[in-house]
Order: sequence, then C-alpha cells, then structure tokens
Amino acid sequence: MPLSYRGCAKEILQAKGIEDYDLIRIVRKDGVELKGILIPRAELEDDKHIVMKLENGYNVGVSVESISRIELLRKRKETKEEPVVQELPVKQLPRVPLIVTGGTITSKVDYATGAVKPYERPEELLDLIPEISEMANLSYVPLMSIFSENMTCREWIRIAKEVEKEINSGSEGVIIAHGTDTMHFTAAALSFLLEGLFKPVILVGAQRSIDRPSTDAVLNLFSAVKMAVEGPIAESMIVMHGSPSDDYTYAIRGVRARKMHTSRRDAFLSINEPPLAKITRKSIEIINKNFNKRRERGEVRATDKMQEKIVLIYSWPGISPDFLEFVVEKGYVGLVLAGTGLGHVPTRLIPKIRELTRDGIPVVMTSQCLFGRTNLNVYETGRLLLDAGVITVGDMLPEVALVKLMYVMGKTTDMEEIRKLMGKNLRGEISKSLSITVFPPGDVYNV
Amino acid sequence: MPLSYRGCAKEILQAKGIEDYDLIRIVRKDGVELKGILIPRAELEDDKHIVMKLENGYNVGVSVESISRIELLRKRKETKEEPVVQELPVKQLPRVPLIVTGGTITSKVDYATGAVKPYERPEELLDLIPEISEMANLSYVPLMSIFSENMTCREWIRIAKEVEKEINSGSEGVIIAHGTDTMHFTAAALSFLLEGLFKPVILVGAQRSIDRPSTDAVLNLFSAVKMAVEGPIAESMIVMHGSPSDDYTYAIRGVRARKMHTSRRDAFLSINEPPLAKITRKSIEIINKNFNKRRERGEVRATDKMQEKIVLIYSWPGISPDFLEFVVEKGYVGLVLAGTGLGHVPTRLIPKIRELTRDGIPVVMTSQCLFGRTNLNVYETGRLLLDAGVITVGDMLPEVALVKLMYVMGKTTDMEEIRKLMGKNLRGEISKSLSITVFPPGDVYNV
Repeated sequence: MPLSYRGCAKEILQAKGIEDYDLIRIVRKDGVELKGILIPRAELEDDKHIVMKLENGYNVGVSVESISRIELLRKRKETKEEPVVQELPVKQLPRVPLIVTGGTITSKVDYATGAVKPYERPEELLDLIPEISEMANLSYVPLMSIFSENMTCREWIRIAKEVEKEINSGSEGVIIAHGTDTMHFTAAALSFLLEGLFKPVILVGAQRSIDRPSTDAVLNLFSAVKMAVEGPIAESMIVMHGSPSDDYTYAIRGVRARKMHTSRRDAFLSINEPPLAKITRKSIEIINKNFNKRRERGEVRATDKMQEKIVLIYSWPGISPDFLEFVVEKGYVGLVLAGTGLGHVPTRLIPKIRELTRDGIPVVMTSQCLFGRTNLNVYETGRLLLDAGVITVGDMLPEVALVKLMYVMGKTTDMEEIRKLMGKNLRGEISKSLSITVFPPGDVYNV
Repeated sequence: MPLSYRGCAKEILQAKGIEDYDLIRIVRKDGVELKGILIPRAELEDDKHIVMKLENGYNVGVSVESISRIELLRKRKETKEEPVVQELPVKQLPRVPLIVTGGTITSKVDYATGAVKPYERPEELLDLIPEISEMANLSYVPLMSIFSENMTCREWIRIAKEVEKEINSGSEGVIIAHGTDTMHFTAAALSFLLEGLFKPVILVGAQRSIDRPSTDAVLNLFSAVKMAVEGPIAESMIVMHGSPSDDYTYAIRGVRARKMHTSRRDAFLSINEPPLAKITRKSIEIINKNFNKRRERGEVRATDKMQEKIVLIYSWPGISPDFLEFVVEKGYVGLVLAGTGLGHVPTRLIPKIRELTRDGIPVVMTSQCLFGRTNLNVYETGRLLLDAGVITVGDMLPEVALVKLMYVMGKTTDMEEIRKLMGKNLRGEISKSLSITVFPPGDVYNV
C-alpha cells in the first residue's frame, strides 16, 4: 500500500515505514495517546495533519506539530494478495451482499472544489472497517451509481429484483448503500415491492463522506452489517445515526422513516412510531416489538410493476383548482394530497376533487403535519372531502402514500380495490387508532 | 344566567340554585374536592356528568353518581348588566383587541354529529376565563368567520390592516383567534406585511374546542393576553401549548412556526431556532433573546399587496418536468421548490428550471427536511441548480418562503431585487450559518 501524504506529514510517516491503512499509535506532546488506522489524504489537502480512524469508529485529525512520537503497530492486511481467503473463508461467515446504488457513503470529498464525488475504488469503504470481515462474508455488488434524487420507480424495481435474487440464493441479509436524500422513498418502495420477505433488508448511507473526520459512514455500515447478520427483523429498514454523537444507530421501519434534517448525522426520524431497534457496537436492543420475524427458509418475490404517473401535492392557503386540472391534462392517474391539519384543503378545490374521483382518478388524503393521523370526520371540510370520494389512510406519511399508490396501481386499476388496499395496513404504514403517539420525536427515543 | 343541564344533573344543581358559569365546589364520595366554574352542557350530551373548569385552567367532567356534596360558592358576574364597567373600566387596563377570524377556538362540538361548529355567541369564550378581565380591557372584533384552510392572501391583508388600525390607535397588543390548520402561514404573512411593528401581534387557537374537558383554549388564550399585555416582544408570533399537559405555552416566532401534529395540543414547533418565550400562569421566560423589542410609540404600516400566483412544490423521486411547464401554462409568476436533502431535485428538471429563471420566473429552493439549512455547493446537483439560476434562502421553511415570495413580488417584479430580498433576513426567517441547530425539537425546549 502506498502513502498518500506529502510534505512534513509524509516525512515523519515515511521515517517509520508507515503506509495508508496501517495501524499506528501517536503520542501527542500533551501526553494523549491515540491508536488507530491511518486514513489516506487527498492530493489537495494540507500536509499539516495526520488523519486516523480510532477504535471507537471516530476519525481524528492530528496536527503534525502536536506529535511527540509516532509508531507503526501493524501493517495493513493486504486482502488483495490473499485470494484464497476471499474464495474460501476460514470461518463459515454469513453471506451479506452490499448492493451499491451511489450516494455519499460511496463518495469522497473533492478537495479542489469542496464538493463530494463518488469513490473510484469503492472497496476502500471496507478497508476502513476491518471488524466487518469478522462478522460477515460481505460481497460488493455495484448495481448503479446515481445521486439518490435521480431515483425513479424503475431503479426501485431493479434494486428489489437484486434483493430477491440475493435472498432467495441464501444471503443472511442484504445491505443497500444509498444516497440519503430519497433513501426513505426507496425504503418504503422496497417494503411494498418485496412480498414474503424473510430476511433483513437494510438501507444505509452517510451524511458526511468517509474520508471526513466527522463521517457517520463507519458506524452506520457496522450497524447495518450487525443488523443483517444478527437482527431478528425481516423488513425493509433504514439504519442511520440515532444521535449527533457517534455512539449508536436506529433501525427505522422503511414505511415510517423520513429525512428530517438537511445535514445532521441523526437526520432520519421514525414518524408516528418508535424506531424498530437501537444498535450499539455491542448489542441490538429491540424497541418496537411489533415486526415481521426473520425466518430460516422462505421465498421472496419482487413485484416488477409500479404506476409512475402519480402526483404528490402539499396544499397551502391560496392553492388554486387549476392544479387539479393539470393532473388530468398531463395524463396522471393518481393524486396524493398532503393537506393541512387533520387532512384539509381549501373548499374551493372540492368540486374538482369530486370530478377526479368520478373519472376514476384516486385522490388520497394525508397531512403535511407529518406527525399524527388524519381525521376527516371532525370538521365540515373533511366531511365534504369524504363525500367527494377522497381516500383516507390514517397516519400514513405523504411520501409513503405516494409510493404505496404507485405500488397499488401497478397491481390494479379498479377504484374499489385501490381504495381498499390504500386504507389497509400492509407493511406497518398505518397504525391502529389507539397506538401511542410519538411526538416530538425525542419523546420516545429514550424509552 | 340559565342552567343548560337536564335530567339528574339538572336536579342536583337546581336544588342548590346553581346556574351556568357559577363558581361551585364538588366533594366526591372518595373525598376529593373540586372547585371551579360550571360549564354549560350541550343539548345532546348525557345528563350523568357535571363539567367544571378548575382554577388550573383544566376542565373536568364529574360523574353525578360519584358526587357526595355540591355547593354554590359565588354567582357568575353578569357583565352584561353592568354597562358602566364596560365603558369606564375601574382600573386603567391596557387595551387589547381580540380579532376573531374563525377556527376551533371560537367553535364548539355539535353533539348531534360529533363535528365542530362555530360558536353563535363568541363572548362565551371570555366568560370561561374571568381572570382575563383583570389583565386587559379585551374587546371582541369579529372580523371574519372562516375555516383557516380557506384563507388566502386577501384575508391576510385584511387582518394586517385591522392590526395596523388597532395598534396605531393605542392598543397594547393584538390577539388574533385563528384556525390552527394554516395559522403558521398567516403568522408568517403578518410578520412580513407589518412594517415597523412596535407591539406584540399574537395568533392563538385551539386543537380542542373550549367546551371539551381537554380543551387547550383556556390556557392558550390566557397566555396570549399575558404576552399581549406584559411581553417585551413586538413581533408576529403564535402562542400555543408547549407540552401535552395544560401547564405552559410557547410563543413561537411567526416565520419559524409550523404545525407538526394533526391533533396534539402542543402541535406547533419552532423550527431551526428555540421558541421566543415560555409562558406559565405566573411568568414569561424569554428563551430566544434575539427579538424585536416592544416600544411605547411608533407607527406600523400594513402592506396591502401580495402576489398570489405563486406555486409551492415538494419534490419526489420520479417528479416530471411537466410540473414546471404547468407553472408557465397557468400563468404563475413564481415557484418555491421544497427539494430533498440539502436542496435537490432530479437533474432532469434542471433544463426547465433554467428556462423559467431565464423567462423572469424566480425559482426558490428550500428543503422538505424542514430542519436544517439548504446548501447547494456540496453536490453536483446543487451546483447545477445554482447555475440554472435557483435562489437559495438558507434555513427558511418552504411555507415561509412561499409567503415571503408572495410579499416580495407584491413589492417588485425586478428579478435581481427579488433575489436580493429573498436571500436577506427580514424578520428572523433566515439565521446566520453559525446558529445553533435545534433538532430534534425536544432538544432545546428544556434549556
């Protein structure tokens, strides 16, 4: 392995025969000792810092000036030179594919522009987390390389098909590396698309790329592998940081997850129910006991059809009925509304909504509050909407209702069947009316 | 005052000469004593319960069977029969108008259908909170009676004009009773419309109507009056429950508030900054010290023009460029996007966005994460959006960006001026990049 550092950092590392990914110890002038793996530096970074990944999974940058002593503890294991280990694992480890779709978790910072770009050699991700190789026989499946905002239902189906293949051929669980922007949409899509799921399907990502000291990729990926191998839950879920510190992750049910912060590591929240589990380096603690259990044997089937021509509209005061005309004019066949409060839109929209439902276009009502359930029986506007044929879906998130309508209308065009399936809890996306209300998010997470 | 009860409840109340709104004491068979004001019962309710408002503001229903003794402590003050007090207040109390627009706070349950309908005699609201009459000279201004989902910018301007009149003629503060569905939109609109504001403007509402035992109307209205009279903050703000209990409220800056739960009493959260203040029955505790201060004298001006033809679109994977064609076809002149993550939409939308901005239609980018700030410099999609002319607005909420664009385009049609005003912090709607991140909401509220 070469050494990527330059300048004065390179000098002191080279003097000890240290190369990228070696295990080293640094003793600082203030007496602090740090032990960890040397992380490569990009060409345009400064030569004043040495970056290492500590055993707790956290990356630190150590200023060259502050170093009193530096030691090489162990050379990096060169897996590339041990092909025998690759083909015949010494231990019979569970097989876990890592399906790569793109996103920050497989990216690094371009120090010329400060921007984030995809990795050229994605295996580097695994080099940084050697303990994973003792937990699972992880295979790398580069399925696609796109920013998650560019996903469509065609990509969701491709991923579902790959998951089907992997699980039916004996994988203990499947991990999907994914951009965080739309990870919750994909997680919801996989929840619906995978029928008869009997192993964990885990979406994992990073809010900060793995070459940054504050990366969340290491703990997230470690947790994902742990859930895939040891977790009892056979559902589509998201595993990401559960706190701003690098101490634990949450597994959140795919149909309950929503990205609720642009940049924090703990950006994903479980909406309207507690997370499924809390994962630390040592244990998996089940929080929500109501889940689909992992089974030894089974057969999963990936649905390969979704209806793409569905629209999601968040209502606002002043929204005009011409929005609904547009739905028909552009050939859309389904509409999800994120109304205000309990599920309302201005009453001037109601005649148009009635026309849509009469013409066989399902109109589903959710709430832009996100938390809580809709109830169209309390206020007059709600009752008028019900009378106009609007479909109610309890406490389902707007984004999940969109994905579910794509799935349901891929299966049937019969209005009554669509109404029945949308209102029925299929994957945990609708809770019973007596479920505990979880709000604000912080409320339940420390239960 | 008559007695609205019937059956066995009526019998035991009448025997003591008790009528609606009298102060009574009930001793239950289990020894518990309750002291409070007798609340009227609707015609279709059962005759097995007596409902009273306790001194802590909470309503309780007491089963007739459980009562051991009942006493009349004080007859209700019949303000209607003391017109002298109305015209010449004994104490020189600060003048506070209660502008009524509609909503649950001025509604009651129709027990025939279980639905909520507007009050016929809105003064009943005040009858239930006698302590208010000692705090302020509250006048009732029935401006309109609409469900808040039917508000448009025309109503926002009408309210702003009324506030202007009231404040410039000597009111100490203004309270606006409003439906909760779109209260945060109106609060944001008033923030922008009222230039040179020097007194508090407080929106208040209720998640449960005042005749229900679990009503939040009493504490909310009490807190609103307290803020209007004693509070140091001259801004447009929302005052609503701060916890699921009936113990305190938060004052949330109008441009930072969002209704985040369909039914809970503490449904409003302050997004991306702490609430302005916490209000208990005894005190106002300032949390966010950065606010516009109340002044003795001044002149407020209500802007009377907003641009209504603005569209708000929450993006999703699979959204098609035809949405943006629709903007032009239907004559819209501005577009606010709630992108994913740091502020992204599918790259296939970017050519259309470029066309829009080139044609003089401003396109503003916000994030549907709601929490956190947008940053279009991190990923390629963001940089392409910037290049296509998208306007960035930091950590402004999508709904606030919509209202602000309506306001800004009511003032100017010059693209550069629009860009400058949208990106500039006018009323606390954009925070500096180094502001403390508040997330999850529970994090900061107990500081």
